[in-house]
Parts: sequence; structure tokens; C-alpha cells
Amino acid sequence: MPCVNIRITREGATPEQKAELIAGVTDLLRRVLARNPATTVVTIDEVDCENWGIGGLPVLDYRAAQAAKAPAMKEPRR
Amino acid sequence: MPCVNIRITREGATPEQKAELIAGVTDLLRRVLARNPATTVVTIDEVDCENWGIGGLPVLDYRAAQAAKAPAMKEPRR
Amino acid sequence: MPCVNIRITREGATPEQKAELIAGVTDLLRRVLARNPATTVVTIDEVDCENWGIGGLPVLDYRAAQAAKAPAMKEPRR
Amino acid sequence: MPCVNIRITREGATPEQKAELIAGVTDLLRRVLARNPATTVVTIDEVDCENWGIGGLPVLDYRAAQAAKAPAMKEPRR
Amino acid sequence: MPCVNIRITREGATPEQKAELIAGVTDLLRRVLARNPATTVVTIDEVDCENWGIGGLPVLDYRAAQAAKAPAMKEPRR
Amino acid sequence: MPCVNIRITREGATPEQKAELIAGVTDLLRRVLARNPATTVVTIDEVDCENWGIGGLPVLDYRAAQAAKAPAMKEPRR
Repeated sequence: MPCVNIRITREGATPEQKAELIAGVTDLLRRVLARNPATTVVTIDEVDCENWGIGGLPVLDYRAAQAAKAPAMKEPRR
Repeated sequence: MPCVNIRITREGATPEQKAELIAGVTDLLRRVLARNPATTVVTIDEVDCENWGIGGLPVLDYRAAQAAKAPAMKEPRR
Repeated sequence: MPCVNIRITREGATPEQKAELIAGVTDLLRRVLARNPATTVVTIDEVDCENWGIGGLPVLDYRAAQAAKAPAMKEPRR
Repeated sequence: MPCVNIRITREGATPEQKAELIAGVTDLLRRVLARNPATTVVTIDEVDCENWGIGGLPVLDYRAAQAAKAPAMKEPRR
Repeated sequence: MPCVNIRITREGATPEQKAELIAGVTDLLRRVLARNPATTVVTIDEVDCENWGIGGLPVLDYRAAQAAKAPAMKEPRR
Repeated sequence: MPCVNIRITREGATPEQKAELIAGVTDLLRRVLARNPATTVVTIDEVDCENWGIGGLPVLDYRAAQAAKAPAMKEPRR
């Protein structure tokens, strides 16, 4: 009967992707620790980007700073 | 000075019901553990149904699957 | 299928008191919001006093400061 | 690589204020515990006032009750 | 840069099993949402059984009650 | 009346350092958002290293892997 909380930046995860996360984490806990899927709860918190900080900066500022340092990198990692 | 977090699916809990939860949990901690109501904090997180998983499925899919198994059950439990 | 987390300072709550909290919160959610007790999860986090701050101070220092201000109060509130 | 979660009532914190919180907490962990800012994550949860309880009441009711007791206090503390 | 928290009852999960959970969740977020493994944080909270409630009961009492109802079931599900 | 949770790896933070974190976060919220220190709660969760993952690995394995890549770095960052 585990409880899992997944916090991600709110950037357009689809219902299908969320369903994949729920299925994947539940199955992982069944396989690794034999926990019962029927009572495994998974919640996903989508946090607005201005409310998420990394490296001392709001995440969009952080990515801009990273991109400025490494201009060849096509797309910032989330 | 306890901190309580109540996570529920977002399904129309009213301000009155939330006030009842806040009063009820605060009183429970006072009665059982003599904790001071003045510094008991209660937060309620309402989580969108597509962000809540149980049994490896998003909760609405889970309820639909349960209802399909037990068609006589009038209303699914939340 | 709510998830409730109760955080308290670690100060000797007994298994019986914890069972009372679990029963009380689960029943509250059933009464107020008709949530299913069978899938209501309650976890209790007991936090060491040196890891709990209130009023800008670790909780034991805070209580000492409150007691110094109000020497007549026999026992500090938790 | 600490993870910090700041929960506040949703009452109009600006992006600039949030950036100050993120920078301040990250710097605090670097100064006090030498934790690496590059992997310090800070999330801010803004909780609707009707979902925040203190003293057994939703926070706005609590403030109204406090103001009624101490009518001279110009503005309630958040 | 997701943050994942996995809460389970404390029942002897080994370091190897924990490493599998960490690797599995991190990989799941990379596959489903293209999140960067380098900044994915996973924490595992092992909660003492007397601090975990389900069905209104501490988890060991809950399992005993379930076993009494279904005596043929060899081993309770966690 | 904010609630702040600071999660760090359990690596010997002293009571004095924890008191500094509590004072620092409480003061930050007072300065930036005018939140009342008297009702600001700060909790510190110290998580065993085997229960903390980053980059898909338990944190000690992660640091060992980083050190192997950059052998000149005297001391790994936490």
C-alpha cells in the first residue's frame, strides 16, 4: 500500500503520459517489493514553472542561463 | 503544533466541508495528543482526477473498471 | 481514497494514540466527504524536536522562551 | 542536493518574490550546510485560503476572529 | 528535474531494492516525459508500521483483520 | 503561517546548523512576504543516503561515479 508523489513542472503532460507514469510506478513497486497494486496510490503534482527553483533560480531563468553558457545545445533538458 | 496534509481528489468539496475537516482534525489532535489547536496547521490538497492513480490506473478509469466488474453497485466509492 | 499525512513532534505518542488518530481521521473523511475508509491511507511522521522549528526557533527553545515570558503557565502546549 | 518545499497561502506572491525565496533558501543551504546550489530544488505551493486551516478554522475565518478580539490591530498577519 | 517521493511501510527493503526503485522511477520519467535523469531526485520514506493506517486501522491490525476474513490466503499483500 | 519542509541527506547536520536553517527560512519569509514568524513552521527531514537517489543512482553511488569522472575534484558536493 505505498503512496507515491511525483512532482514535475507544469509543461503540458498529457492524460496519456500521466496514465503511463501511474501504471509504471505501480508496476515497479509490484515487481521490486511485491507491493499490492490494488492499494498503491500515485499522485502527480504539476508545479507552475515560476514556483519551481533549481540552482537558486526559477527554472525558466535557470534554463536560459544554461542555454547562454552552452549555445550549441538545441533544446534544454527539463 | 502539528501539520496535517489531507490529499483528496478534486470533486467538488465545498468550503463548509473543508471547514469541517479542518475543525475535525484539529480537535482530534487536541483530544488524542493534547496538541495546541492554536498552532495546528491543516492543508487540503485537491488533486485533479487525472493526476490521481490507484490500482495502476487513473482514478476515473479505475472506478469504471470496478463498476464493470460489479454492475449492481449503484455509485462508486471515492 | 484520500491520503492524509500527520506530522507531529516525536514526544512519545503511543501505538494506541496513533491508532486513535488513524481511526479518527478515516472516520472524519467518511462522514464529511463520503470517502471510502477501505482506501484511506494515513501516515504519521514523528519529527525529532531539533528538526522542528516554530517562531524561528527549534521547538524546545521556543517553548523555553514562551515559558520565560509567562512563568505561571505550568506546562507548555505542544 | 536538498529538496525544499515552501507552502504558503495563495495571496498574490509575485514572480519576483518567489525568485527571492528560491535564491534565499538555496543560498542558506549553501552557507549553513555547504549544499550544492546546482542540485538544490525549491518548490513553492500556493494553497487556496479555503484549503488552509489554523486554530481549527479556515484561515480567513481565523483572521476575522483574531481581528474581532484585537480590534486595534490594523492588518492581520499572514 | 522531477522530485519523486515513495512512501512504503518499513519492512526490510534492501539497499539493492531501493537502488532498483531509484533507477526505475528515474528511467520512467525519462522515457515518458523526457525528464533529465541528472536532476531527477527520488526519496524513499520508510514508515514504521504503527505509523501507517489503512481502512481505519494500523496496517498490521488491518492485515490481521483481512486474514481473519480470508483464512485461505497464505500471505497478506503489503 | 507558512509551512516549510527541508529534505536533506542525513550526514551529520548539527543542532546548531538546524537552528540556523530554521531561523534563516523564517526570517526570509518575513522579509520577502511579510509572513508572521510566530506561526511559521519549519521541519527538517534527514533522509538516509541509501534512500536518496539522484541521476538514477543512490546518492553515494552517484558521488562515486562523479568522482571517477573528475578525479581531481577533492571533495564531492552534497
